[in-house]
Amino acid sequence: MKTPIIKEINVTPIATVDPPLLNAAGLHAPYALRIVVEIVTADNITGISEIPGNVSTLEALASAVKLIGGMDPFQLNSIRQKLMDAFGKETAAERGNTPWDQRKLVHIYSALEVACLDIMGKVTGRPVVDLLGGKMRDRVPFAAYLFYKYEGAGGKLGFKTDPKAQGWDAARQSKALDPAGIVAQAKAMQKEFGFKSLKLKGGVFEPQQEVDAMYALREAFGPGVPLRIDPNAVWKMETGITYGKKLEGIIEYLEDPVRGQENMARVRKQVNIPFATNMCTTSFEDLPAAIRLGSEDIILTDHHFWGGLRACMDLGRICQTFGRGISMHSNSHLGISLAAMVHLGAALPYLTSALDTHYPWQSDEIITRGRFRFEDGAVQVPDGPGLGVELDKKALAVLHKNYLDSGLTKRDDEIEMQKVQPGWKFMAERW
Amino acid sequence: MKTPIIKEINVTPIATVDPPLLNAAGLHAPYALRIVVEIVTADNITGISEIPGNVSTLEALASAVKLIGGMDPFQLNSIRQKLMDAFGKETAAERGNTPWDQRKLVHIYSALEVACLDIMGKVTGRPVVDLLGGKMRDRVPFAAYLFYKYEGAGGKLGFKTDPKAQGWDAARQSKALDPAGIVAQAKAMQKEFGFKSLKLKGGVFEPQQEVDAMYALREAFGPGVPLRIDPNAVWKMETGITYGKKLEGIIEYLEDPVRGQENMARVRKQVNIPFATNMCTTSFEDLPAAIRLGSEDIILTDHHFWGGLRACMDLGRICQTFGRGISMHSNSHLGISLAAMVHLGAALPYLTSALDTHYPWQSDEIITRGRFRFEDGAVQVPDGPGLGVELDKKALAVLHKNYLDSGLTKRDDEIEMQKVQPGWKFMAERW
Ligand SMILES: [Mg+2]
Ligand SMILES: [Mg+2]
Repeated sequence: MKTPIIKEINVTPIATVDPPLLNAAGLHAPYALRIVVEIVTADNITGISEIPGNVSTLEALASAVKLIGGMDPFQLNSIRQKLMDAFGKETAAERGNTPWDQRKLVHIYSALEVACLDIMGKVTGRPVVDLLGGKMRDRVPFAAYLFYKYEGAGGKLGFKTDPKAQGWDAARQSKALDPAGIVAQAKAMQKEFGFKSLKLKGGVFEPQQEVDAMYALREAFGPGVPLRIDPNAVWKMETGITYGKKLEGIIEYLEDPVRGQENMARVRKQVNIPFATNMCTTSFEDLPAAIRLGSEDIILTDHHFWGGLRACMDLGRICQTFGRGISMHSNSHLGISLAAMVHLGAALPYLTSALDTHYPWQSDEIITRGRFRFEDGAVQVPDGPGLGVELDKKALAVLHKNYLDSGLTKRDDEIEMQKVQPGWKFMAERW
Repeated sequence: MKTPIIKEINVTPIATVDPPLLNAAGLHAPYALRIVVEIVTADNITGISEIPGNVSTLEALASAVKLIGGMDPFQLNSIRQKLMDAFGKETAAERGNTPWDQRKLVHIYSALEVACLDIMGKVTGRPVVDLLGGKMRDRVPFAAYLFYKYEGAGGKLGFKTDPKAQGWDAARQSKALDPAGIVAQAKAMQKEFGFKSLKLKGGVFEPQQEVDAMYALREAFGPGVPLRIDPNAVWKMETGITYGKKLEGIIEYLEDPVRGQENMARVRKQVNIPFATNMCTTSFEDLPAAIRLGSEDIILTDHHFWGGLRACMDLGRICQTFGRGISMHSNSHLGISLAAMVHLGAALPYLTSALDTHYPWQSDEIITRGRFRFEDGAVQVPDGPGLGVELDKKALAVLHKNYLDSGLTKRDDEIEMQKVQPGWKFMAERW
């Protein structure tokens, strides 16, 4: 078999319609930014990937691309080393205070690794999951991701809705600003996608309202549907303890109630609910302290933030070794990321919960097969070769134009929120 | 590409000539036992592997083989799960007190995983190292493994030597029972193989003699050659502290001076030398306590004992994450195991020391290319598809006959020692 050689790498920033979802950092912009990477070999085999969009990631990717031209996509250990040598050690500070991770190296390596794995799969005629040790499950379970939101469809409609929208499409545009709104959203989402677990993005309103929403969900769905809430670390310690206790017995896990490993560990000792994180333990460097302190029970993997699919497999082994559960974090994303998430979710030997996905909130798609279907809340592993999805170049061009037209260069939920609530400020500790 | 299907698995116990090497557990028998596994697919692609021989491993392999017939060799996650379900959880007690590990599941899974990776490599036209993320180095450095030994060639010659033997072949048969003998052995071994690091198997004589041997090596080879000694955990705590201190400043690492993680951690605090282990931290289950206690600085991986090559890659990530170095343990072995060790050694991103190998002590071979060559103490990564070595069926038949003729069914260095020193008993704490 001929060794594939990386001939060309295309990096395309895109903007995909996103509704006005609320979170601890503010408000989603009308478009979520992503970057699509295409790696083309000398034999014209193309591997693709998708990562969160940000102008600084885009610039860093442009310089990374120069380092790996001419390389064999199988040489992932060397590719990672080249990037590490070029970009140097990342610090915890680079992650930032936002719910989403802002480190460059992990994003860039993730983009290149997934596209290389896609090529490796195509060259060997194997789905990516088989390059991760093979399927532990044929269908990967996801959780409904519920959001407080303003009315509106996002994109050009902004805070307006499409009056012709039906079913989930209509519910996606509806406002949800109280427990009843969240329950209605959950019902519509469950009806469309069949999710068996529900997660609420919290940290938006005062904690009692969010706890009320969890009780309302419990009331509506019964004890057979696992519930989670994620205040994105903006609760004070006392809030974490007080409202954590109120949630005992009704939720599957509490995600990042407070900020930082030490605070998480302290609150966790007083609250009898498993804690999960994608904010206090977000890198391999964070793990020794996480284990020493006991800051969480469940670590949310994310191949965009942990440096690729194989790194997430390693994280899975570490979690199993040190008695931590594993699940998956998500940001607004399209089908290339979803495919990668599904291959990973299928391969992880010790998956303990349904995974997060924002996918139902997006309506665009950039893969030729169109949008992925969920059955009973789960996605069938594409049987590939590679990721099993192909880039729709026309759709890519449309979303790239959206990017150029949008004027957005990075995610900034605070600025979006200020358009609605002038003077609104992100607070690392709000409630 | 057609999915390979496991059609047939052949398991062949063999006995390979081994000289009378001394160690803390007694004396090597005239033959070392190995098991060779061949997995044949429906398309007649053969994958091979080699693990330590033991009648109970052999029986367990026979039952494991029935579980995976008809499976696709890429489905390693499922194969491991099947074995775990069938064999249940292993306990630390099953490892035993001997320098070598006696757990069944890790051995069996290692045998099947390596043979499957060999098939995967052949099917995809890729060396095994590329299935582990690709080469970080083209040549993998090994250390000279020095042994106190009685005179003799092993095998049919037993304690006799072949008077026609020359060079390393003669030195391999010579006795080495004091520091001068060890230095002579090291010189002959270095001349033949070019090793840049030296390791002495200790725990055999009273500690002062072994420390003297290390000083004699230092004197003979100078400070540019890293030295190690491995008393295989038979030193008492006071001995570990007293003789550990005497070795400060002249050795690269001290391997398993005392028994158990807690004792290792206590001695380590008082001795200013990095500690290594293949005895107190030997499984993923052992890692949490190892990290908590700080029982060692360097963990010796071994794909036979840790459950395969990918598990060892995971171990590498864990060591890097938790600030431990990584090197590799060895037992008497032939070229199939060496090939696997080299692929792993080439892929490990964070290799910190030259690896152990008993290979110079063996003189037989069961691969068609004949015995591996060492250049400057390093082995070139085979670039063939898969492991890059093929089974020599004639040689296999000869060594299988050796096995049947030897009457040996498992390694028992105590019984061999008693043939020389009647009444000799293994002591978990000897010096
Ligand atoms: Mg979160
Ligand atoms: Mg040892």
